[in-house]
Amino acid sequence: MTPDDDTGSLTPMQSALQQARAAADRGEVPVGALVLAPDGTVLAEAGNEVEARGDASAHAEMLVMRAAAARLGQTRLEGCTLVATLEPCPMCAAAASHFRVAQVMFGAYDPKGGGIEHGPRLYEQPGCLHRPHTIGGIHEREAASLLRHFFQALRS
Amino acid sequence: MTPDDDTGSLTPMQSALQQARAAADRGEVPVGALVLAPDGTVLAEAGNEVEARGDASAHAEMLVMRAAAARLGQTRLEGCTLVATLEPCPMCAAAASHFRVAQVMFGAYDPKGGGIEHGPRLYEQPGCLHRPHTIGGIHEREAASLLRHFFQALRS
Repeated sequence: MTPDDDTGSLTPMQSALQQARAAADRGEVPVGALVLAPDGTVLAEAGNEVEARGDASAHAEMLVMRAAAARLGQTRLEGCTLVATLEPCPMCAAAASHFRVAQVMFGAYDPKGGGIEHGPRLYEQPGCLHRPHTIGGIHEREAASLLRHFFQALRS
Repeated sequence: MTPDDDTGSLTPMQSALQQARAAADRGEVPVGALVLAPDGTVLAEAGNEVEARGDASAHAEMLVMRAAAARLGQTRLEGCTLVATLEPCPMCAAAASHFRVAQVMFGAYDPKGGGIEHGPRLYEQPGCLHRPHTIGGIHEREAASLLRHFFQALRS
């Protein structure tokens, strides 16, 4: 180990935040996401691409889950972790359940649009077939600040 | 008008049911969907492609909304109708809201997996930003029968 060994090594949430910043630079709502394999390998990472793809469903979380499944060559992401800078919306939270991800880690809570800790609280619904373990509030301030600045700039 | 003019002309739900039957023939859960433009033109139609694409999010509804937006060259499907043979799940129901579809018409009700009239009842959530008008139960028996036979065959 040299002191430089960890140069550039980011935690998964820091990588997701980089994706969120890159999304903001492209004029997208700054949300980033990635999927970790059970061994911690990053299978896929992306920022929002709603505007770039002209696809209202192209949230970062949907993109990385689809890409991770394609990379693994399997329909489901058992044992995998979805990391997102913002609490996933109901579409993405339900998709994480369909993909059978083991865990969802997110940054900022989203009282208006979130679907896990807010709104429909999908994983608490009696009919929910697969409930990923959820950890929110990781690097919360940075994730929330990115979004706040983005929407402030839009309004100004 | 000759008596043959309407040969092969199907209602939107009948077309969606054809897509569902074709999905069953491919070993997919038999759900079909299409998107109608405000003038009634079919913009996209598809059956489930979860197995074919190895993508747990490749529900018929997601595929047709993405394809319809791509065909229109716009992110949203304002004024459009999503027709599906089964009550959309929370992922697809939330996506219909993101895509701003005006109306969701579906066949069979889905007490276990539906997200509109059952479970989280997404469009009744106070935070729901866009609530498509919903009509369920169209050709309900045929849509439900397709699903029942598919799952009976799986179990036998």
